[in-house]
Amino acid sequence: MSKHLERDLEQLQKDLLAQATLVEEAIYCAIRALQERSVELARAVIAGDHRIDLLENRVDEDSLRALALHQPVACDLRRITAAMMINTDLERMGDLAVDIAERALALADAAPVPIPARLQHMTELATAMTRQAIDAFVELDTDLAERVIGLDDEVDALNAAIITELVQLMQASPAHVEAALSLFSATRHLERIADHATNIAEDVVYLVQGEFVRHRQDVGHCD
Amino acid sequence: MSKHLERDLEQLQKDLLAQATLVEEAIYCAIRALQERSVELARAVIAGDHRIDLLENRVDEDSLRALALHQPVACDLRRITAAMMINTDLERMGDLAVDIAERALALADAAPVPIPARLQHMTELATAMTRQAIDAFVELDTDLAERVIGLDDEVDALNAAIITELVQLMQASPAHVEAALSLFSATRHLERIADHATNIAEDVVYLVQGEFVRHRQDVGHCD
Repeated sequence: MSKHLERDLEQLQKDLLAQATLVEEAIYCAIRALQERSVELARAVIAGDHRIDLLENRVDEDSLRALALHQPVACDLRRITAAMMINTDLERMGDLAVDIAERALALADAAPVPIPARLQHMTELATAMTRQAIDAFVELDTDLAERVIGLDDEVDALNAAIITELVQLMQASPAHVEAALSLFSATRHLERIADHATNIAEDVVYLVQGEFVRHRQDVGHCD
Repeated sequence: MSKHLERDLEQLQKDLLAQATLVEEAIYCAIRALQERSVELARAVIAGDHRIDLLENRVDEDSLRALALHQPVACDLRRITAAMMINTDLERMGDLAVDIAERALALADAAPVPIPARLQHMTELATAMTRQAIDAFVELDTDLAERVIGLDDEVDALNAAIITELVQLMQASPAHVEAALSLFSATRHLERIADHATNIAEDVVYLVQGEFVRHRQDVGHCD
């Protein structure tokens, strides 16, 4: 690999790490806004999404520039296209944090409703998965990536338990239907955030092992 | 452009058109399964997703091969990376059709619940947007792409009206809460399908005009 390509790849990784930090913060703050009925915090998440979008554009442009400039083949080519895919996942996760913040605004406007306690644990899992999936990409660590993929079942179980709780709330109290529906949407957004972290982890396994984990179809190896 | 690259690009476009046809059918059948309480049709959509996944893998591999083989620059490079992004959107749309089919299975298992009439119109819009977004990509037709982007507001309005209807149903009839929640999820999935079609249309505008429509940031032109 040329020195220039190596430097460009390092810059891409740094930008993706910075992006992951912004996304983690956005998720964490959006859920806190929901729990604390904080309009201010929800608005800060919505306003902050602009930075995530700008960084997404930069990573996309830098990836295309690296492809055009260095015309990499084999693994380097895969690494850059993986960076582009991860970039897309991170940007969508930022959008989902905005969706949660919008639900927080709707909730702050309605009569107080009990927030499922499991939401906190689910948030911690989703943000940890995001961080670990990006670390796995930077370190090309398939063990870590596989652990992230494994955590998704735990998120799904929490999601199911929270939804059962919300259905019971709606059945018991028609006045809470709209607020519970906002909580339902926010929980589903969080579950999709974890799905995107899982996608990133699957891309890392594909990158290292040359195997489409997403659909388990072999495409050859790459060390 | 070399004859070989031209041929490979044509094949990519053909595969994306085939993928769009599969995705449109999946969306249409998933909603019909929901409306007709058809377990058989819902299961056919779920089983059929495998073909969409395989085609996604092929388009991804062919795109990477074209990048490695022809090392295209400027607009050809953008065209191939756009094909990869569109491919990802189409695969996610197929996944969302499966999500709707799973809601149809849940509904077929529950007591019958009134299906909002607007869902049919919303489905027709979402599938038309999908088809037109891919046509816009193949023909590099920004006018058509802009029309697709414009249709998203109509989908959002239908989505809001259906959700209001479902909230009223849940408030009036606690026994229908779970079924109405399945309809709520299915409607949101359909709305996200239209969002993906909008993403594709935005990618077409970017491809032709060299402008990030997604976040409205100029990056230079490409004819």
